Amino acid sequence: MLPRGRPRALGAAALLLLLLLIGFLLFGGDLEYWRPPGAGALDGDPSADRGGHNHSDCVPPPPPLRRCELLHVAIVCAGHNSSRDLVTLVKSVLFYRKNPLHFHLVTDAVARNILEMLFYTWMVPAVGVSFYDAEELKPQVSWIPNKHYSGLYGLMKLVLPAALPPDLARVIVLDTDVTFASDIAELWALFAHFSDEQVIGLVENQSDWYLGNLWRNHRPWPALGRGFNTGVILLRLDRLRQAGWGQMWKLTATRELLTLPATSLADQDIFNAVIKEHPELVQTLPCIWNVQLSDHTLAERCYSEASDLKVIHWNSPKKLRVKNKHVGYFRNLHLTFLGYDGNLLRRELFGCPSPPPSGAEQVQRALAHLDEEDACFEFRQQQLTVHRVHLTFLPHEPPSPRPHDVTLVAQLSMDRDIDFLPAYSLYDYLRASIEQLKLGSERKAALVVPAFETLHYRFRFPSSKAELLALLDSGSLYTFRYHEWPRGHAPTDYARWREAQTPYRVQWAADYEPYVVVPRDCPRYDPRFVGFGWNKVAHIVELDAQEYELLVLPEAFTIHLPHAPSLDISRFRSSPTYRDCLQVLKEEFHQDLSRHYGAAALKYLTALQPPQGPA
Amino acid sequence: MLPRGRPRALGAAALLLLLLLIGFLLFGGDLEYWRPPGAGALDGDPSADRGGHNHSDCVPPPPPLRRCELLHVAIVCAGHNSSRDLVTLVKSVLFYRKNPLHFHLVTDAVARNILEMLFYTWMVPAVGVSFYDAEELKPQVSWIPNKHYSGLYGLMKLVLPAALPPDLARVIVLDTDVTFASDIAELWALFAHFSDEQVIGLVENQSDWYLGNLWRNHRPWPALGRGFNTGVILLRLDRLRQAGWGQMWKLTATRELLTLPATSLADQDIFNAVIKEHPELVQTLPCIWNVQLSDHTLAERCYSEASDLKVIHWNSPKKLRVKNKHVGYFRNLHLTFLGYDGNLLRRELFGCPSPPPSGAEQVQRALAHLDEEDACFEFRQQQLTVHRVHLTFLPHEPPSPRPHDVTLVAQLSMDRDIDFLPAYSLYDYLRASIEQLKLGSERKAALVVPAFETLHYRFRFPSSKAELLALLDSGSLYTFRYHEWPRGHAPTDYARWREAQTPYRVQWAADYEPYVVVPRDCPRYDPRFVGFGWNKVAHIVELDAQEYELLVLPEAFTIHLPHAPSLDISRFRSSPTYRDCLQVLKEEFHQDLSRHYGAAALKYLTALQPPQGPA
Repeated sequence: MLPRGRPRALGAAALLLLLLLIGFLLFGGDLEYWRPPGAGALDGDPSADRGGHNHSDCVPPPPPLRRCELLHVAIVCAGHNSSRDLVTLVKSVLFYRKNPLHFHLVTDAVARNILEMLFYTWMVPAVGVSFYDAEELKPQVSWIPNKHYSGLYGLMKLVLPAALPPDLARVIVLDTDVTFASDIAELWALFAHFSDEQVIGLVENQSDWYLGNLWRNHRPWPALGRGFNTGVILLRLDRLRQAGWGQMWKLTATRELLTLPATSLADQDIFNAVIKEHPELVQTLPCIWNVQLSDHTLAERCYSEASDLKVIHWNSPKKLRVKNKHVGYFRNLHLTFLGYDGNLLRRELFGCPSPPPSGAEQVQRALAHLDEEDACFEFRQQQLTVHRVHLTFLPHEPPSPRPHDVTLVAQLSMDRDIDFLPAYSLYDYLRASIEQLKLGSERKAALVVPAFETLHYRFRFPSSKAELLALLDSGSLYTFRYHEWPRGHAPTDYARWREAQTPYRVQWAADYEPYVVVPRDCPRYDPRFVGFGWNKVAHIVELDAQEYELLVLPEAFTIHLPHAPSLDISRFRSSPTYRDCLQVLKEEFHQDLSRHYGAAALKYLTALQPPQGPA
Repeated sequence: MLPRGRPRALGAAALLLLLLLIGFLLFGGDLEYWRPPGAGALDGDPSADRGGHNHSDCVPPPPPLRRCELLHVAIVCAGHNSSRDLVTLVKSVLFYRKNPLHFHLVTDAVARNILEMLFYTWMVPAVGVSFYDAEELKPQVSWIPNKHYSGLYGLMKLVLPAALPPDLARVIVLDTDVTFASDIAELWALFAHFSDEQVIGLVENQSDWYLGNLWRNHRPWPALGRGFNTGVILLRLDRLRQAGWGQMWKLTATRELLTLPATSLADQDIFNAVIKEHPELVQTLPCIWNVQLSDHTLAERCYSEASDLKVIHWNSPKKLRVKNKHVGYFRNLHLTFLGYDGNLLRRELFGCPSPPPSGAEQVQRALAHLDEEDACFEFRQQQLTVHRVHLTFLPHEPPSPRPHDVTLVAQLSMDRDIDFLPAYSLYDYLRASIEQLKLGSERKAALVVPAFETLHYRFRFPSSKAELLALLDSGSLYTFRYHEWPRGHAPTDYARWREAQTPYRVQWAADYEPYVVVPRDCPRYDPRFVGFGWNKVAHIVELDAQEYELLVLPEAFTIHLPHAPSLDISRFRSSPTYRDCLQVLKEEFHQDLSRHYGAAALKYLTALQPPQGPA
């Protein structure tokens, strides 16, 4: 039951760079020459102008681009699932990027909670984030009837020119279901191809949806030819605002809704209807910037010609399970970033110096002071590591708080289910005990939950203390670590617990490490003990030093299920260096105890034993 | 004891593409403009010509490059550790590449054994591999005294013009300790900058080594200024051969060795001495193509200016542990590919159609026939998966074969140590038993090694059958799966085994799945049962159907150590679909049995039980 910090407000990065890749198209002799990525084929077909180019010996230079230019990206993101998708998208963008980036995230409360903590703890240099409240934008789009699975949130892309800061002139808008396979600066560079009138850059839609007549009564919204897909958009926000975009799309939408019952594809229908009316507004982007893997995609016409795919768009509701003969190829690209360790993206942009992310400088300084030759180097390094935190990875609705509430804190890895299971009634029993014992208000105590273990893979969990005792007597259960390390739980006094009807107080003893229920404001775990050993022991020492009573609850229990030894317990057992380091850390811990608690800490030092085994 | 196939000879890919990235450098107003990657700065300093460019409105087009050009890469690789490094290097190259590639690998026997199998099973489209025997090249360089840690193998880069096929005109030569952070085609494109005289492209050495006087009596080999680093080389093989390279370097080396005792940096010393004499041969490459993280590196001068690093070179003997204030950045790049799942690189090159790798077409066809709606889809898909095989991942010297030899076959994952431990004397006892029972020559049998299990994490392994029986009686050991699935081992007849002095024959029974010693030519495991359940059972059925005797050895035993349930056993337990699928696979197995063995297979079918638990 430890408090969670939730720092808000993230800093924005500042310096500027722009990557420019420009291309040529030549034709000579019998050879076919290839065009570099990111250029040409602005008609949406990468092969369209091949061979028809002029043969001049020189081409105009590309528009100048500023070094280290800050690129802006806007994404609408709501809910748990989209938040996970966004993380994969962001990882793919960060992997290839060489520019400072600023993400503008329009989020609901769930996504904001997750993403604020994620970016704050991620500490990627030269990445800024701003949040915009989707709730506030809802009234501007909620009047539009909509049948698309993206719901209201898709429609919010229409109001970005008004929602984003008024001095922001350009932005790349992305759906959460796209994956980058190239540097986003190459996409940003396409702004340079906009004519003075153009305000929106889009890739042609890679399906026949907008051609209509796919089935009886199939009446899509109006569009230019196949229309455009809005999974990837370049927006000239400055010009859109000047052109009265806010009025423009609302007028078009209102008029179309006189004859059409609802949008089928959310914002995309409205963007297309506006473009049909004002074709001069759109700059067509090369198809490789939005390879659409929808259910009836024509994307193969694009990618079978291209040597270089830039952005993959999983725009079928089936996502990665969409049927497509090349889906394996695209899945591989996506899985690359889904499985990518985001910590590896915490790297500086050489060539574009930027202020370190909030908090990172302090960590860097501390890390720089470590001595790689120190036997405890790895412990100290890990202790300083700020882990990326993804709150509520799976959809989760927090229950409304109840009096004397209790939270179970556990840790687990993705491949191992939690190894301790609490008694069925434990939650209610703990709340009742906290109330009865007047914890928090009148009494400072840690409630001990006695721990047992089974060595069987398959095991019927006891539904009461009586059943548990029967299993204990039959040898199906043991007290926790009975064989390996009995002193870790001996002070709990299991013999007394068998008979106990009321909570009873026990005394601290060396190496005692019970599982406890503690108030939110109790001492924290000491991050010195990041590996195996002494983390729980040290915590109980701290509680005792701060005069917490240790009260064993007569009806509480938890049972440990078998699992393989962790990597760290194996290292403890096999490595004398590991054990020596743990000894050094223990001594440092005791020195700190003496400093904080003076003579009262003497008892812990005198009880200190030489290392004898797992603690 | 299953045979290992070792197919040789890999096919080469054929079609051609070339990626060209070209750059400009402009200067205007107060803004600093940036140059795209892969161009300019051929003097080794990326900032050297900034601002000094002419302001003409057009620039000459880049040299034409053929679409889908096949790029050639040569690497010298010897031993286990270098083979692992090479895999990481190759993964980084494949990640960014968009061209067909051909790797020319000069290997010792160890590396060839590993890498041939790896590339054969990897099946990456548009990747060809050729092997060259390092043993044959040794006499050409073994006369050169050498003090570098790369040993003789480093020197072999000198003889590549003669060793590679005579019609091969250009090649990129790489050390195994480099990591790519960009498309290798950009490096290949630099060949176009070679003048008619130039034959070798190199990056300047990023340390003061060749300036001399680093310490008393420090006498480096002669070099132009700081000299060049040979971790990344572009070789014009055709011109080198014409220029009599083979004589040229030998003359220089012989002359220098009159006054210098040995090479300190292997081939690099000799390349530098030749270039000092013939500076017209070298084209200096931009420093970002070989960012050298040696112990006293000056690389920061390069990378602090560059926005885009292309190749990282871990050229300190300390490798990833080299001291450098930015080492974290570079380690992250390296770890990205070290940890990258190489299977994700099995993707086609759209735009450059290429013949599928040997064996891949058949797999693709079979995969295409699978029905995604089939409950067993995942099983069938996995069954068709060709796993990448990395033989002898850790250094390993195979023992010389002995009569009646036995190999232990086991499987494990990187994070879980093997879960069965054999009796100390088992190897010798099995060899003696095989001889005594005349297995192979006169008798067709599978020798049963009785299995036990402990439920304790810490456990003193019994040194004899007597000790094992004592542990069994005291309850510290059980017969294997005694609690969960006794029928899996019941036919072994543990009661008889206690007393047995000689091998005894047991009869097959349903669900019997003992651990056995079998001859190399026995039936293989059925890949149908790739998940949890029925793999061992089906194998024992096959043995019985082929009339193998099942002989239990009285002194043999193996003990299972506790571990967490596997992901697949959890799925078996929790998913009715998983269990239903297993049932379908069992039925298919029995149909196949009937087809192969006719009426004799009837007993297996009638013994078939509905699924009752783990098998």
